[in-house]
Amino acid sequence: MAKVGIIMGSKSDYDVVAPAIKVLNDFGVETVVRILSAHRTPDAVHSFAENATKDGIEVIIAAAGKAAHLGGVVAAFTHLPVIGLPVKSSTLDGLDSLLSMVQMPAGIPVACVAINGGLNAGLLAIQILSVKYIDLADKMIDYKKKMAEKVLSDEENFLSENK
Amino acid sequence: MAKVGIIMGSKSDYDVVAPAIKVLNDFGVETVVRILSAHRTPDAVHSFAENATKDGIEVIIAAAGKAAHLGGVVAAFTHLPVIGLPVKSSTLDGLDSLLSMVQMPAGIPVACVAINGGLNAGLLAIQILSVKYIDLADKMIDYKKKMAEKVLSDEENFLSENK
Amino acid sequence: MAKVGIIMGSKSDYDVVAPAIKVLNDFGVETVVRILSAHRTPDAVHSFAENATKDGIEVIIAAAGKAAHLGGVVAAFTHLPVIGLPVKSSTLDGLDSLLSMVQMPAGIPVACVAINGGLNAGLLAIQILSVKYIDLADKMIDYKKKMAEKVLSDEENFLSENK
Amino acid sequence: MAKVGIIMGSKSDYDVVAPAIKVLNDFGVETVVRILSAHRTPDAVHSFAENATKDGIEVIIAAAGKAAHLGGVVAAFTHLPVIGLPVKSSTLDGLDSLLSMVQMPAGIPVACVAINGGLNAGLLAIQILSVKYIDLADKMIDYKKKMAEKVLSDEENFLSENK
Amino acid sequence: MAKVGIIMGSKSDYDVVAPAIKVLNDFGVETVVRILSAHRTPDAVHSFAENATKDGIEVIIAAAGKAAHLGGVVAAFTHLPVIGLPVKSSTLDGLDSLLSMVQMPAGIPVACVAINGGLNAGLLAIQILSVKYIDLADKMIDYKKKMAEKVLSDEENFLSENK
Amino acid sequence: MAKVGIIMGSKSDYDVVAPAIKVLNDFGVETVVRILSAHRTPDAVHSFAENATKDGIEVIIAAAGKAAHLGGVVAAFTHLPVIGLPVKSSTLDGLDSLLSMVQMPAGIPVACVAINGGLNAGLLAIQILSVKYIDLADKMIDYKKKMAEKVLSDEENFLSENK
Amino acid sequence: MAKVGIIMGSKSDYDVVAPAIKVLNDFGVETVVRILSAHRTPDAVHSFAENATKDGIEVIIAAAGKAAHLGGVVAAFTHLPVIGLPVKSSTLDGLDSLLSMVQMPAGIPVACVAINGGLNAGLLAIQILSVKYIDLADKMIDYKKKMAEKVLSDEENFLSENK
Amino acid sequence: MAKVGIIMGSKSDYDVVAPAIKVLNDFGVETVVRILSAHRTPDAVHSFAENATKDGIEVIIAAAGKAAHLGGVVAAFTHLPVIGLPVKSSTLDGLDSLLSMVQMPAGIPVACVAINGGLNAGLLAIQILSVKYIDLADKMIDYKKKMAEKVLSDEENFLSENK
Repeated sequence: MAKVGIIMGSKSDYDVVAPAIKVLNDFGVETVVRILSAHRTPDAVHSFAENATKDGIEVIIAAAGKAAHLGGVVAAFTHLPVIGLPVKSSTLDGLDSLLSMVQMPAGIPVACVAINGGLNAGLLAIQILSVKYIDLADKMIDYKKKMAEKVLSDEENFLSENK
Repeated sequence: MAKVGIIMGSKSDYDVVAPAIKVLNDFGVETVVRILSAHRTPDAVHSFAENATKDGIEVIIAAAGKAAHLGGVVAAFTHLPVIGLPVKSSTLDGLDSLLSMVQMPAGIPVACVAINGGLNAGLLAIQILSVKYIDLADKMIDYKKKMAEKVLSDEENFLSENK
Repeated sequence: MAKVGIIMGSKSDYDVVAPAIKVLNDFGVETVVRILSAHRTPDAVHSFAENATKDGIEVIIAAAGKAAHLGGVVAAFTHLPVIGLPVKSSTLDGLDSLLSMVQMPAGIPVACVAINGGLNAGLLAIQILSVKYIDLADKMIDYKKKMAEKVLSDEENFLSENK
Repeated sequence: MAKVGIIMGSKSDYDVVAPAIKVLNDFGVETVVRILSAHRTPDAVHSFAENATKDGIEVIIAAAGKAAHLGGVVAAFTHLPVIGLPVKSSTLDGLDSLLSMVQMPAGIPVACVAINGGLNAGLLAIQILSVKYIDLADKMIDYKKKMAEKVLSDEENFLSENK
Repeated sequence: MAKVGIIMGSKSDYDVVAPAIKVLNDFGVETVVRILSAHRTPDAVHSFAENATKDGIEVIIAAAGKAAHLGGVVAAFTHLPVIGLPVKSSTLDGLDSLLSMVQMPAGIPVACVAINGGLNAGLLAIQILSVKYIDLADKMIDYKKKMAEKVLSDEENFLSENK
Repeated sequence: MAKVGIIMGSKSDYDVVAPAIKVLNDFGVETVVRILSAHRTPDAVHSFAENATKDGIEVIIAAAGKAAHLGGVVAAFTHLPVIGLPVKSSTLDGLDSLLSMVQMPAGIPVACVAINGGLNAGLLAIQILSVKYIDLADKMIDYKKKMAEKVLSDEENFLSENK
Repeated sequence: MAKVGIIMGSKSDYDVVAPAIKVLNDFGVETVVRILSAHRTPDAVHSFAENATKDGIEVIIAAAGKAAHLGGVVAAFTHLPVIGLPVKSSTLDGLDSLLSMVQMPAGIPVACVAINGGLNAGLLAIQILSVKYIDLADKMIDYKKKMAEKVLSDEENFLSENK
Repeated sequence: MAKVGIIMGSKSDYDVVAPAIKVLNDFGVETVVRILSAHRTPDAVHSFAENATKDGIEVIIAAAGKAAHLGGVVAAFTHLPVIGLPVKSSTLDGLDSLLSMVQMPAGIPVACVAINGGLNAGLLAIQILSVKYIDLADKMIDYKKKMAEKVLSDEENFLSENK
């Protein structure tokens, strides 16, 4: 069974992270959820990242706000793909989180998704795992069909309501 | 053998894409390089994305500038992980490319790297493939060691030059 | 009778789109309103855009938020003028939507209006149609007169209230 | 014969405007090119805009930089569709020109294209005229085909050069 | 008696303009307040600006939001000093209004104050008038003294409350 | 004879300030030019500002870059109108200078012009002085006429060159 | 006993400053809190800064919003380290305050912390004092341990709640 | 003798760091200069930071570009004051480096200076050390005097050249 590590810099990031956890579990992917701070518990981050492979983790999602170093710091200690999830904070509308996550220097990439894009972080983890797990690929193809159907039924409802 | 599809919106994006091709080939990953425009050849993009799996492609890198839709458009037609590589253009210093790539709406993620971050796009593709291909994981661990050694030897040279 | 296609990326964009629909209908222009997502229902977008001319549509308004590709994707599949209506989302205050809409690469223009500028999207569609439909030109001249009168009467009320 | 008015705020904007003039002439559209400043020759702008219809002009392109008011000022005096072409200046990388053009208040739209997007301004004018002039629609369909072929042949050359 | 013309693009700008009116009246400066739109009532703006001198106006304050052309348009038609007051609108947090006001091209200056800086617009008008009216200079010196005393008494209250 | 104080934060700002000096001298306005730093020679700034009135100065232009406090610091020590001239520096394209100049807190306005807008700073000073000096008003009316003629002759040359 | 001077530009900045005062007092550092405005009470700022050393102050925290000159102005009059605390205001989301604080020209540094980062301003003051006061260094080491424990216990609670 | 640790993320940052080294040495402060990457040599950063106190280092300067995590990562492992020096990179004009440095989450401050502000990073380190080392305080007072004299002599030269 595939396993994704999800870390957030603070418990206040949970609302942004929750859709990632949910969609991963819906796809039958195991999740290891941790609160780990790049700045307040750097040793715990280090230890988590270095042991991730041993713990069976294959993809890591790192959610953080402001000067959001968590993704880069985790990526420094592992060769696993790291997904950066920038969290909007109370100033600068998430631009600081985004740039701190996405503008990684050459050599250590972080796979950044949209600000507060928890669902997409989860889906991207599934797409990455799909490279290896064929059943996840099949489920993802199915998921995309259902999304399309949802848009079409939204449209139908909308059109019947706005005739 | 692992295979990565690399598409760019215009041949002028080649300089940004080249380090991705090089590092992938250095790691022994096959690359399929295409010039495909989300806006000028949308059918070719559609066809490329839909047939990617059949063609043995497991990860896609999409490089584009300005209103950089290429990543999102490809992601719409495939369940494969898509890496977005925003290209700096002649105005707005790459901010437009970055936001057009990274701020994908819920449901269709693009894994965005830094503006002009060609090397990181290639490395991220390798990290994603490493989930499946154990030899790539080993090579990546080795690559990270060499990067560290390079920094240490840069430091040594620097210190001996600046005594 | 002139006809405008109005598409939005999600039903949540309806509040922004509504003033466009209203002003077009007030001018006696027929509207075809659709919910179509560049990323979740790309085939439906493709089909809509390719058949727009056959369906009698002469101008298209595309409303979307965040990495707002809808305008560009539609423009790729039609030679009709496409008006981009960037929708403000919950982060970055609409800057991402705006840049994703307006910064189109050379060859495929999108006629962008202000963030959340639904009324202006509708009025621009009418101005474009006015090139062909003389009665719309006359109505538009009249509309502008009424807008001017509204400002003057606002002023009059304001002045009498603030004496 | 269709006719487009092209105005620029200063002769230094000519390089940005030139591709618009060229593509319009290539399509057989007549162009009236003027240097008119919203701030230095406001009466000339007023007179140009008010007489545009009488002079047979059906679409107007307005190019300007910095606090780029030209599009809005012209739009105030005519019911014709006005295309705003923001010109990059020596500071702020064109962001000022873009926002001054695109963020028009409700009631008076300007159809904004990308910063320095001269070609797209011309193509958008042609698309607008195509609503009325069927031959322009046919030529535009042809033009888009040739653009696609250009991308495909670029790709072919690129692939043969990079084997 | 000194006289200042205050124009706003829409009656919704009144709350931002009100502190300017108040401080001018407190200083004994006459104010002529108008609602005039650069885009919806351009002729009224033209006429206001051209007749301002005749009407005894010596300084003009122009308040507007979004693509805020009002200051520049007024400045085009008068040699009087024009103060630009950018109004924060519902998107982009006032950055569009600010850049549209302050980035005036060479030849036609607008004296820009802070976004929503109504009080400062009024005070700047008084400072400008003080060049001519010595009593206003005296009052302004007094006003600055009272501001300083207000800060000092704020501090005193604060310190006694927070002992 | 009218007199304007022009201060710059560093001698490297001279190129930006030079057009202000030139236009003021062309209008027959005396200029007192100083290099004064808000941070390195604060006492000299203080002394300059406090004595400005005594020295016959009626308007002050303050040019500075980066965290450009010079305008605000001068304004704190005088009731004279202070024109802020933000200078583009080597990073952030002048946005820092602009915001540091224009976003003055309530009570102490600075009349900000465009980034590197030296000519406009000079013209604004003249417009302010024109409130008192009628001959300057006349010269300014004349200057604006000549600017308009320059645009018209630019156009004429342009049209004859591009026939 | 170590002593820190804390100044704010207006009493409305108190909420942002309060965590700095609290953490300093918790560490046993004496605080001198003042309301001083760079623009409204410049002489009081000057006097405070020049006498700070005599008054036993060893570090200064300056909090201000918008064109936040307070840090730079204080730094001009003292050789003590000055910490800049940018306060988010009602427009531009704090970007103006941040750039006005952090982009100090060469020669006069301000040690800038995050927008609204009151706690960090206090902690930075303690770290600076720790260079001299060994007991503060010890307390800071202890404080960092407790922060880490807090994250770990937050995680424990979170995990037990989300089993 | 006081000692400052100066680390840079890459040898290419040396030009930005050099003025800090120079001014520290001019003040007689010992410098330990290292090339350490938060992402490529995280263990070396960790080890450097943890041993800094033992090695007699009392202040640390960390210079890095793009997603500049170096300052935050060092600050996580030491209680010493850490000065962040954001380096301008080839895209986004240094905004990414700045926000990644300055917007540190609560608990772990970084004392940020201006983008490419190497001299100020060095001066800030000296000011911090001055709290403990009285001779540095004296030298800093002297340095500020000389800076002031330099501005005054620049002015003198400028005035004599521009008579």
